[in-house]
This record gives sequence, C-alpha cells and structure tokens, in this order.
Amino acid sequence: MTYDDSNPFARILRGELPCIKVAESDAALAFMDLMPQADGHLLVVPKEKAVQIFELSDASLTACMRMTQKLAIAVRAALRPDGVFIGQFNGAAAGQTVPHVHFHVIPRWEGQPLKLHSRDVADADTLEALAKRIRSHWRAA
Amino acid sequence: MTYDDSNPFARILRGELPCIKVAESDAALAFMDLMPQADGHLLVVPKEKAVQIFELSDASLTACMRMTQKLAIAVRAALRPDGVFIGQFNGAAAGQTVPHVHFHVIPRWEGQPLKLHSRDVADADTLEALAKRIRSHWRAA
Repeated sequence: MTYDDSNPFARILRGELPCIKVAESDAALAFMDLMPQADGHLLVVPKEKAVQIFELSDASLTACMRMTQKLAIAVRAALRPDGVFIGQFNGAAAGQTVPHVHFHVIPRWEGQPLKLHSRDVADADTLEALAKRIRSHWRAA
Repeated sequence: MTYDDSNPFARILRGELPCIKVAESDAALAFMDLMPQADGHLLVVPKEKAVQIFELSDASLTACMRMTQKLAIAVRAALRPDGVFIGQFNGAAAGQTVPHVHFHVIPRWEGQPLKLHSRDVADADTLEALAKRIRSHWRAA
C-alpha cells in the first residue's frame, strides 16, 4: 500500500503536529491517543514509513513490541487497571483510522465499556496528567 | 501471576489436547481458535509459561510477534479479508479467557461484525479446511 506522507502520525513524527509524548526510542514513538477509548489510552508508532503490519520491517516490529510491552507494564503500575488491551488494526474493516502502523495500549476496568474511537477529543490537561503518571513508571532499559 | 499448568494452552503445548496447527517454531505455536470470532481466526502462543504479556521474556515476545506478522500476511493471502485485527488481551477485564499469553489474528470483512468469543465451537472440518488454505501461504523463513 502506498504511504501517504501527510497522515497525522507522519506529521507528528516530523514534529509538524504536537503530541503528548510518553516514550521514544530510535525506532518508535509513544504518545497519548487524543480520542481515548479509556483513560491512559496510548499509541506506539514505528518511525519507519509503513501503512500496515504486513510491510513493517523486522527491526521496527521488534522495537514497537518491546515499547508496547514496557508501556503496558508502566500503565498497569501507574493506573492500576483491571486489564490491559493491546491491539493493532490493519484496514478500515479492522478499525484502522490512520494509515501509518500503530499499536494501541488500552487500560481496561471491569464494568467500563470502551468509548467509541475517534469520537471525542480529550481535554489536554487531563491527557498530560495521565501521561505524567505513566512516564513516572516508564523504564527505558 | 502464578501460572496454572492445567490451562488448555499448556495442555495443547504438552500434546495432551489436540489443536489444528498452522505454524510452529522453537518458541511459539499457532493454531485455529476453536470458537472463532470470524473465519480464519488464529491464535499464537509462546511455549514459555507466562500468563500475561507483562512477564513474557523478550525472546518469546519477539518470536510471537514475528509469527503473528507472518500469519497476518498468510491469512490475508489465503482468505483475502478486507482487514486483519491483531489483539492481545491481559486480564478478564480486557477479554482474556485462557491464562496463558496469546495473540489473536482475526480476519475482518466489511459489514461482518465479530462473533462473540467463547460462544460456539466451530465445525472441525471447516476449521481444518481454513487451516489448509492458510498453511499453503505460510512462509517459515
């Protein structure tokens, strides 16, 4: 699939759009989802230009999954959810809304259904406060 | 979390329960979900004993994700879905039903909502026929 350089995650990676960053490595970036399906909803994106997981390089896949796992650990320590959902969607039929590979890390609480994605933009101060709590448990190693 | 050696995936890994296998490596096994949420629903499990992603070793995580990516490619080639969902659920609140880490690979088609998980056991011949089609596109390399 042809990569569209104007997609929002490409623009975030180039610094043309802001993001509430939680972690960064040579190969991947993690930030708060602006339209979270639950408190603490994070996204991990590879720096490599890839639309879907099918074309992602082995190095980027590994880097993204390591960051995803460590964020799941950090978000669990920071927010004490009952569970953590990890999801990666390829194609609109699977729920993909931005044409750059991304991994969702979504804390889950018993009895709290997920909010619909891409519906409401969260308050920036609330997102920043959540990011601060998650960052305090992030271990880069 | 304490690992329960009697969970169904541990029993499959020990050969005590059958599975419709699609792929295997030193570190991971992939087989058809017996209660699929869509045609071609696959599971990837590490051979390592781990309940959730938090405690999974780096080597197992990498092995599982490589297999997951390659299965996503194979299932796309075999079944031509409109999308592919990849999910990994930690804790009942996040949808985890078996206490051994597993990754879901679920083909998605436009206009076909996911079936409820753990509801109906699929016909074994149907699952075997789907597995055969996916295996024919599997590349071990």
